[in-house]
Amino acid sequence: MAIDQDRLWRRIEALSGITDPERPWTRRSFTPRFLEGREWLAAEFREAGLETEFDAAGNLIGRLAGADPALKPILIGSHSDTVPSGGRYDGILGVLAALEVAQSFSERGDRLRHTLEVVDFLAEEPSEFGLSCIGSRALAGALSEQHLALTRPDGMTLREGIAFIGGRPEELAAVKRPADGVAAYVEVHIEQGRVLENEQIPIGIVTDIVGIRRERIVVTGRADHAGATPMPLRADALVGAARLVEAAYKRALATARDNQPLVATFGRIEVSPNAANAVPGEAVLTLEVRSGNEAAVKAFGDALVRDLRPTLEELRLTIAVEPISHVAPTACAPEIRSAIANAATSLGLATRDLPSGAGHDGVQIAHIGPVGMIFVPCLDGRSHAPEESITPEQAGDGARVLAETVRLLDVSLG
Amino acid sequence: MAIDQDRLWRRIEALSGITDPERPWTRRSFTPRFLEGREWLAAEFREAGLETEFDAAGNLIGRLAGADPALKPILIGSHSDTVPSGGRYDGILGVLAALEVAQSFSERGDRLRHTLEVVDFLAEEPSEFGLSCIGSRALAGALSEQHLALTRPDGMTLREGIAFIGGRPEELAAVKRPADGVAAYVEVHIEQGRVLENEQIPIGIVTDIVGIRRERIVVTGRADHAGATPMPLRADALVGAARLVEAAYKRALATARDNQPLVATFGRIEVSPNAANAVPGEAVLTLEVRSGNEAAVKAFGDALVRDLRPTLEELRLTIAVEPISHVAPTACAPEIRSAIANAATSLGLATRDLPSGAGHDGVQIAHIGPVGMIFVPCLDGRSHAPEESITPEQAGDGARVLAETVRLLDVSLG
Repeated sequence: MAIDQDRLWRRIEALSGITDPERPWTRRSFTPRFLEGREWLAAEFREAGLETEFDAAGNLIGRLAGADPALKPILIGSHSDTVPSGGRYDGILGVLAALEVAQSFSERGDRLRHTLEVVDFLAEEPSEFGLSCIGSRALAGALSEQHLALTRPDGMTLREGIAFIGGRPEELAAVKRPADGVAAYVEVHIEQGRVLENEQIPIGIVTDIVGIRRERIVVTGRADHAGATPMPLRADALVGAARLVEAAYKRALATARDNQPLVATFGRIEVSPNAANAVPGEAVLTLEVRSGNEAAVKAFGDALVRDLRPTLEELRLTIAVEPISHVAPTACAPEIRSAIANAATSLGLATRDLPSGAGHDGVQIAHIGPVGMIFVPCLDGRSHAPEESITPEQAGDGARVLAETVRLLDVSLG
Repeated sequence: MAIDQDRLWRRIEALSGITDPERPWTRRSFTPRFLEGREWLAAEFREAGLETEFDAAGNLIGRLAGADPALKPILIGSHSDTVPSGGRYDGILGVLAALEVAQSFSERGDRLRHTLEVVDFLAEEPSEFGLSCIGSRALAGALSEQHLALTRPDGMTLREGIAFIGGRPEELAAVKRPADGVAAYVEVHIEQGRVLENEQIPIGIVTDIVGIRRERIVVTGRADHAGATPMPLRADALVGAARLVEAAYKRALATARDNQPLVATFGRIEVSPNAANAVPGEAVLTLEVRSGNEAAVKAFGDALVRDLRPTLEELRLTIAVEPISHVAPTACAPEIRSAIANAATSLGLATRDLPSGAGHDGVQIAHIGPVGMIFVPCLDGRSHAPEESITPEQAGDGARVLAETVRLLDVSLG
């Protein structure tokens, strides 16, 4: 199953070049720049022979009709929006690899049994409305009235935003796919980490999109004059926070060799009064835990705090934990993982199972069908930054494995 | 040597009541409110029979002439400015106890050999010009042209500020006392800590005003996506910072039973990017070390970093240390410490030696004569806060010990 790697790379360079010029690479959803990218994409979809539409939720979909109209469609794609000052490949690699795969099938006259839908989901990245995965939520029937009422800082509602980019918010119900309405969803994406690069493996098979739990942890001691308070009389909240950070690091590190390792991050900390001459009276930290193991994600913060409580009490500190958010893990479907593995093997490409530490549209689409993801390495793991970098070969590998995966699934799926 | 504790307490209540009404207790130097307090104080000085002047540096001085004009003066006092939203006793207790002592000598006709100077030093607290101990610096000849050129946020220079509060900046040279020009300087102050209260001791004899060293420590790792970066591949700057905080705490705690214990505080920390989903790439901390042991103050930061460097390297982190400021410790004079001890004993008051963890005007005056400080307990160690609290008896104890100390020093000093 050949694809045209040069055409794929030319398209990646063309679409990534549609950026806010003063802060590359930026193509934020719900902006004129995003629409410019979308118009270019839709033209490419049409030229590739796909039946192209913008659905009511603002997704761009190109269809290649299958031989058997009774079969549910296979969806492939990703998203064309970016974070501010993001990278050139996150999202568009998956859309353009999907376009290349569909065009290659079309050009070879190699008709699939299933209808193939190439999807550019609306606003996968967190938008100014404070919501991510907007287009895929609509397909899954998970875009609520509450979501549509979200406003961005300038006062526009999400409902108005969807209309602005050409959607029809009053027809959203029609976008919703039936439960089990998708035969398979497969997405190619850059890894956004360094696992594949470190091990020099060209293809990652995503086992699950991790669950993400965030908790706000407040350590309370007593703000005192740093000069007038001897060490034994202190209740230094930062010392307590330091013990939490160390314990979380060790506890998470110990899972590194697990089948489903967990990552735990204290990414935010604020101490008060935060003055050179004051013993910190309070430290507020954000703990983020991610893993494919739902039970482990749920239990981590509680176990950490339970273990640390005696040492914090010795330090005359109290601790309070409050959940901020919780998203359950999404398992990738075994039949899709197998197809990806077989596809890569047939192309002579080594693979490695790994979790996706970042969220993706597949979390939503998993509600209406089996999902899978193909990762390709990216330079030094950099992503969501202008330094994000991949080679034409890495992009081509992703598209080749996607094409062969689709061919295998088209045969095996009902 | 009797003093009038009720009169002392009435004055404390009157002067502390001169506060910005919307944020008690605030009487910032170089403000109209400060001048209001100063005018009230000068009137009390005059009514007490003191020869009263504002010197060219903006210090308020009340003199009780001694019998022997050949002797150098004994200085007693403190300061009448406050931090923003500060306490009712920090500073004014020392000024008003000194006034009470001078007035009591005057009223008893108990003429001292030495001239007694009651001093309200200008701007002991850090002012908007970024400098503290301004008036006492002038007496020590340590107020430089550079200092006078310091500007506060509204653009006023310190030179203009001194003129605003009634000083004569062009005559500053006349304020400077000769080296060894002061027979003794003794100040009563609240402890601002909990040592005396915890041990139920009414009088603290300050052994030294600690040296204070501040260093900026930067731990550098690598900011990475918290989801896509497995634990073993991270270089988490906050984990390194946590180990520094813990090590500094343990190292300083181990000195608690030393003759001259040391305190070390990481009062400030800023991590970046400081986002829930980002591994911290950098942590910037301020280390403050205080002790009467100059060598220990100087060595602490270096030893800490040297010990931690291997573990930080294991964490793939680098560390850089940069001094911010360094003030050497000031020893209190043995003859003044003895006089305070004898005075308290003769009054039946228990004493304890302890360092002053906070800076005071004595650090400057020590350049022109021997200094000593008398501490009284304050409730729960709270200071620089509206909760700062002492009893009339505690204030009275301070004044009584000061009076007897002055009487003893007047006899013993040349």
